[in-house]
Amino acid sequence: MIKGHGDDNYLFKVRLKANFSSNTWYRGTPGVLLSYLKKKIHSIQNYPEPDAHNLRKRIAMFHGLSSGQVFVSNGSVDAFYQIAQVFKGSKTAIFIPSFSEYEDACRMFGHMVDLLGFDELNSTDLAVYQTVWLGNPNNPNGVLTGYGLLTSLIQKNINTTFIIDEAYSDLAPGFETIIPALQDYGNLIVCRSLTKTFALPGLRLGYFISSKEYAGEFERTLKPWAVNSLAIEAGNFIFENFQELVPDLAELTRLSQLLQQGINKLDDFEVYPSPTCFFLVKMKTGNAGELKQFLLHKHQILIRDASNFKSMPARFFRISVQHEAENQLLVRGLADWQNKSRQ
Amino acid sequence: MIKGHGDDNYLFKVRLKANFSSNTWYRGTPGVLLSYLKKKIHSIQNYPEPDAHNLRKRIAMFHGLSSGQVFVSNGSVDAFYQIAQVFKGSKTAIFIPSFSEYEDACRMFGHMVDLLGFDELNSTDLAVYQTVWLGNPNNPNGVLTGYGLLTSLIQKNINTTFIIDEAYSDLAPGFETIIPALQDYGNLIVCRSLTKTFALPGLRLGYFISSKEYAGEFERTLKPWAVNSLAIEAGNFIFENFQELVPDLAELTRLSQLLQQGINKLDDFEVYPSPTCFFLVKMKTGNAGELKQFLLHKHQILIRDASNFKSMPARFFRISVQHEAENQLLVRGLADWQNKSRQ
Repeated sequence: MIKGHGDDNYLFKVRLKANFSSNTWYRGTPGVLLSYLKKKIHSIQNYPEPDAHNLRKRIAMFHGLSSGQVFVSNGSVDAFYQIAQVFKGSKTAIFIPSFSEYEDACRMFGHMVDLLGFDELNSTDLAVYQTVWLGNPNNPNGVLTGYGLLTSLIQKNINTTFIIDEAYSDLAPGFETIIPALQDYGNLIVCRSLTKTFALPGLRLGYFISSKEYAGEFERTLKPWAVNSLAIEAGNFIFENFQELVPDLAELTRLSQLLQQGINKLDDFEVYPSPTCFFLVKMKTGNAGELKQFLLHKHQILIRDASNFKSMPARFFRISVQHEAENQLLVRGLADWQNKSRQ
Repeated sequence: MIKGHGDDNYLFKVRLKANFSSNTWYRGTPGVLLSYLKKKIHSIQNYPEPDAHNLRKRIAMFHGLSSGQVFVSNGSVDAFYQIAQVFKGSKTAIFIPSFSEYEDACRMFGHMVDLLGFDELNSTDLAVYQTVWLGNPNNPNGVLTGYGLLTSLIQKNINTTFIIDEAYSDLAPGFETIIPALQDYGNLIVCRSLTKTFALPGLRLGYFISSKEYAGEFERTLKPWAVNSLAIEAGNFIFENFQELVPDLAELTRLSQLLQQGINKLDDFEVYPSPTCFFLVKMKTGNAGELKQFLLHKHQILIRDASNFKSMPARFFRISVQHEAENQLLVRGLADWQNKSRQ
């Protein structure tokens, strides 16, 4: 496990004015969902269904798939470890920068890992790999990969299994899911998370969808009661009320673009443009570790030092958009850093 | 994963009058804990600490150990899989009948498993095994193994790692924990669960304590955010208020003995005496699968068909004591079965 994920204020215990460090929806867990879970708190008194069977059925219906292809996991990280376990010892390509847990999961199960850049996606011979891992939209840079490119790669490399992590699928305009390709291709697994879209990372709830070819193997490696009762309750509630609960993407995008512009106006910072609600920023002076401490202790603002993402230099940090007033606090905090560094 | 664990009313959806099928404390989750968790529901909005660090510290303090030896898990089943993974490919002895997940976890990680009976515990050459798994008190039969016998085995077989599952430690008078032996022996791991004692199986919360020798290896195989925020909150609350929350063992034992006597008075049933709140019952006619359906649909009572525990014939079922009035319902239901089978 790497040290230095986002949302790490438990280390500092600062009373935060704003938290830009984790890529969850800025409005927090929907109030109706919190109220529902309070009412369902007694569900902790019984064992959850061992394999979350009814939630799997509901998710399968939502995507128009068979429930035997859907696996619910204790957060999407848990899914990565189960997938890496089923493909243990594989020769594996991971496109970076990316969420560190793809690599950690693969290494735990003896994969031989090559780390490749996104610019190599179309030019690399992927046929030599048994598994290929790719985030779409990708964390931490928000890069989108189109349906056409992905399906052409999947089709060209039928002996390679593509694991596509769509954790941020509901947070980027223009995003095209690869899920429909599951009907045509056996070499595909799609991971999803409910954590980001509905802001409930503490509850641990993700799922993945396997092509029919691998479903039996995933069924065999399930652990009982891996998903807790309240997470199952939350999942049922979310899929029953999806359209009412899903974030307003137009508003989210407006705020994100506004914040990206605001930061770009500062001479010492350069935003890597992103269509999603999170993006990378490069500093011209100093490093992200120092900036994080400065913003935390002087402005009660938490950011994600991105230097521990593979291939990311120490000058990079990641921002996830918040309420407009909080975003302004960040711009002011960064301006303060800029002034200080020029003194 | 075996099918047919206890607490499986999600399959039948019968409005139960009593549920004897899972070995959790009969009074259910303590009301003060439920209220506390309702107040803490907003904790799902943030990521849990990646390795539940502060709860590990608190548990270590409770047992007088170093926090580096304590690992919190998503229920104790999750601990078995992590332990089996660290010792992958081992030659392993499991003392049966026992909780099916020891064997499932070991087989998933390529152990060569021998299933041995408790009567062989003292006479088997354990030195040929890399890991030995034993429940104490044991599920499903409530058998206790004394501190003296266990430490003599641990001492005699220093190249064998003993994994002792103490999930029911707080539910049996006369139980002696093996935890103090961790100071003297490097070949010991002790598993604990908060699920049974505080009746919160839906929340998923267990832990294990490793000798210092293996702690580094467990640290390396931790997955981030494996334990959800509310489980961590519950753990903190429990260890701060342990004595007020822990079940009244005298009352629990009185009810269990009373129920065991009540069932024993019926000619067609024979109780295997147990000091704990759960016990096995052997039927003289019919099988446990039929009895389960009869009690469920005619009496709205759920029991645990024990025939899928290894070495258990189809005539065995398991009972976990409930409130006195519910226990009487069970005795009446069993008497009804007896009358019916004699017609």
